Amino acid sequence: MNKTTMAAAATVLLAGTVAAHAEVSLYGKVDLGIVQESGGTDGSVLRLSSGVLSPSRLGFKAGFQLSDGLKVSTQLETGLCADSNNNPEGEFCTGGTFMGRVAKLALSGRFGELSAGRQFTPVFLNQDNFDPFGTGLAGQASNLFAATFRTNNSLIYTTPSFGGLTASATYAFGEAPGSSTTGRRFGGSVAYNKGPLQIGAAYDQADVSETDRIKDANIGASYDFGALTLYGMFERVTGRRNYLLGVGVPIGKGTLMASVAQAKDSGDAHDDASQAGVGYVYPINEQLKAYTAYAHISNKNGARYTVGNSTDTGTGDSAFNVGLTLSF
Amino acid sequence: MNKTTMAAAATVLLAGTVAAHAEVSLYGKVDLGIVQESGGTDGSVLRLSSGVLSPSRLGFKAGFQLSDGLKVSTQLETGLCADSNNNPEGEFCTGGTFMGRVAKLALSGRFGELSAGRQFTPVFLNQDNFDPFGTGLAGQASNLFAATFRTNNSLIYTTPSFGGLTASATYAFGEAPGSSTTGRRFGGSVAYNKGPLQIGAAYDQADVSETDRIKDANIGASYDFGALTLYGMFERVTGRRNYLLGVGVPIGKGTLMASVAQAKDSGDAHDDASQAGVGYVYPINEQLKAYTAYAHISNKNGARYTVGNSTDTGTGDSAFNVGLTLSF
Amino acid sequence: MNKTTMAAAATVLLAGTVAAHAEVSLYGKVDLGIVQESGGTDGSVLRLSSGVLSPSRLGFKAGFQLSDGLKVSTQLETGLCADSNNNPEGEFCTGGTFMGRVAKLALSGRFGELSAGRQFTPVFLNQDNFDPFGTGLAGQASNLFAATFRTNNSLIYTTPSFGGLTASATYAFGEAPGSSTTGRRFGGSVAYNKGPLQIGAAYDQADVSETDRIKDANIGASYDFGALTLYGMFERVTGRRNYLLGVGVPIGKGTLMASVAQAKDSGDAHDDASQAGVGYVYPINEQLKAYTAYAHISNKNGARYTVGNSTDTGTGDSAFNVGLTLSF
Repeated sequence: MNKTTMAAAATVLLAGTVAAHAEVSLYGKVDLGIVQESGGTDGSVLRLSSGVLSPSRLGFKAGFQLSDGLKVSTQLETGLCADSNNNPEGEFCTGGTFMGRVAKLALSGRFGELSAGRQFTPVFLNQDNFDPFGTGLAGQASNLFAATFRTNNSLIYTTPSFGGLTASATYAFGEAPGSSTTGRRFGGSVAYNKGPLQIGAAYDQADVSETDRIKDANIGASYDFGALTLYGMFERVTGRRNYLLGVGVPIGKGTLMASVAQAKDSGDAHDDASQAGVGYVYPINEQLKAYTAYAHISNKNGARYTVGNSTDTGTGDSAFNVGLTLSF
Repeated sequence: MNKTTMAAAATVLLAGTVAAHAEVSLYGKVDLGIVQESGGTDGSVLRLSSGVLSPSRLGFKAGFQLSDGLKVSTQLETGLCADSNNNPEGEFCTGGTFMGRVAKLALSGRFGELSAGRQFTPVFLNQDNFDPFGTGLAGQASNLFAATFRTNNSLIYTTPSFGGLTASATYAFGEAPGSSTTGRRFGGSVAYNKGPLQIGAAYDQADVSETDRIKDANIGASYDFGALTLYGMFERVTGRRNYLLGVGVPIGKGTLMASVAQAKDSGDAHDDASQAGVGYVYPINEQLKAYTAYAHISNKNGARYTVGNSTDTGTGDSAFNVGLTLSF
Repeated sequence: MNKTTMAAAATVLLAGTVAAHAEVSLYGKVDLGIVQESGGTDGSVLRLSSGVLSPSRLGFKAGFQLSDGLKVSTQLETGLCADSNNNPEGEFCTGGTFMGRVAKLALSGRFGELSAGRQFTPVFLNQDNFDPFGTGLAGQASNLFAATFRTNNSLIYTTPSFGGLTASATYAFGEAPGSSTTGRRFGGSVAYNKGPLQIGAAYDQADVSETDRIKDANIGASYDFGALTLYGMFERVTGRRNYLLGVGVPIGKGTLMASVAQAKDSGDAHDDASQAGVGYVYPINEQLKAYTAYAHISNKNGARYTVGNSTDTGTGDSAFNVGLTLSF
């Protein structure tokens, strides 16, 4: 494809978009990296993996301004496996099914945003926000932390920012005939973001059955001192407590990131684990990032935490990553 | 996405399209609604559902004018679940598989159109045409009526309009080795459309095996009186007879729709059912519709008809819907 | 879609593409043909098939020039079934899963190209290159020849052309924990392409387990005499040897192609087969091809080779094809 082609190229026509000034965007990400895992029960393994820093994906966004200042928009995002057609995470890698990463319809305006569909949980968004690795690479908090990433059949209301303060509330339908509770999910978050300081807290409650309920709460904070950003996070989930301290240091155009984290049993089993990770992400340009990372987990008393990455749960107690992410 | 982004945006290049003046369009629909179902064997249920008025989808159309006045075109349309990655209708919701809603190649010209692929059956198109709910919402005829929606491996020939009169013929290959009949499908339709009057009849025959054959015929009519449109439809399918009377009333920019329908056993079991439904669809603009509907089915002698919608077959004998459809 | 629509159409916005001058292309192919197969164990069959000359597909390409003369690009290509939602080859037809035809990230420059992901094997590309049918239609070499088409988790390095000489090397990660060999794949190719002459040789080794290894080597040549192009190919794969002689003759705007091929057991079973095929591909314009072909296989001593096509493996020992391929 060259300039000549570009000049002569037909534009993609969007059916029926004339009157309402449609804006539709196509976007995507292809992430491929080499992952060396060791310390697993079956031995070491060297992989080419899709989605090490961030899951490979393809997405569509469309939005329309309604006459009364209200905006309606949709986002459909599917995972894909850029390495293989035979992937243990399911054929669409993260997200599970076609358009299973995000599928939502949202109304937004001065009142904030109300969205419906398959969406990220508030606990995931909060965990992602205070993890210096941002839910990717070997050092990700989610190797130990427990936030459920997405919720089906959900309604989310997010307030506008009141001087840096925002809040959200989530309700997901259980959709179990005859039960008003089974399968439903509640959640919410509060965040404060002003200058260098960010603080956030989130809660998620999953009513697995009429008698079984999983509760997850996390709180995090970060402060950007210029020369470095410090991160701290605590999670209390049914039966466990998890802790994280991290740092992000701008070095050149890139960012060095490091964190230590702990997972602790609240009961008597003490199947605890601690993780240390370090990584570097370098933006070659606005659309291409190079990355490398290493993390190790010490499992105690039979704990079986593994070092994964943005797409894989991993097989071993340590992993090294190196790769590229192209965004378009 | 704002105007600045728009001005600077790269156009999507279509590989190899320079010489033949390609026109490719991307289109889609995201429909999310709240569905309250009651009267099911397992009890009531409240859902967030994808595709209540019309199935959520993403599609591509491409077409080229051939030098001799003939046009060749293709359409590929996939269903998607906008609410969930865990959907009882299969991961692509209606249509079953990737690009399973429509996948076809068509030649059209003065002779009419000849198309090949996975396509709607003539009985479905006729049923859809004379259902005031248009195969969507709680009140849809297809809760009782039996038309098979799509046919694989089909050839369809559609005549041009002769003063409002059109006809079509369908043949679908059985593709069963060693049998010239198993799996094949025949069909056809005749329609008359002039001013306020529409009349249509269609037939579909599925040779399930060498000895088992399902025959389905339906006939419908509608007349637009201006203040309202009246609809009537009758279907005779192997073992059953179905009837519908409906009305569509323009109210404001929207349309109020209502219908009563009956399903009758042709044999001795008399597992009959009658349905009454009412709905309102309001186009907020050309790309966004709001809808609401309610329908109830009275089942007799063990009949188990359920009130579904465009994507779901439903679980109960009554359902209420409210939601939005965004088209792009 | 007409000129008016086109003028008013919104361009598809590519999120975040402003600074890096993104070029993203959408492309696709819809191939539908009639296939008559006979001589199968279950009897003859007549099908409407997707992907007879070339698999139906949808793909995305994106690429960016890096500042130091290096280019990074990605290609994601999914198969699709244009005939049916119920296809024996899996729901995405050839390629198996979503984006399973090709998914790769490549760096290219004066040094050549280094690519990673799910890609064609060098033996497939070489086989495709010296098959006058180009891995499609009834007469395709791959009815007898054995090249594995794609390899997961692979790295491929391809040299630039040195006066018509190019070479490539492939390594695919085995990704079996605890084994450095199981599942891995090696390969390579050398090709010479100057004026009318093309010569190519390729090798592929699949380490199925620590003790089981499949080796496949092929060599081919073609010479374009103007009035016709001659093709020859030889393959030696674990336990078998395969031979091909073919010809391509430009007739009008189209090409008549014919080949004879033999598959021979290297051991004592002598379950051999010979194939003869003939076809004609006519480009109606740059984006639409019409095709027809016929091939017959003579199986000996219990051999069970079948005449397939680009997507299907086929069921019989002879097949006739006629159809259209639309590219966009």
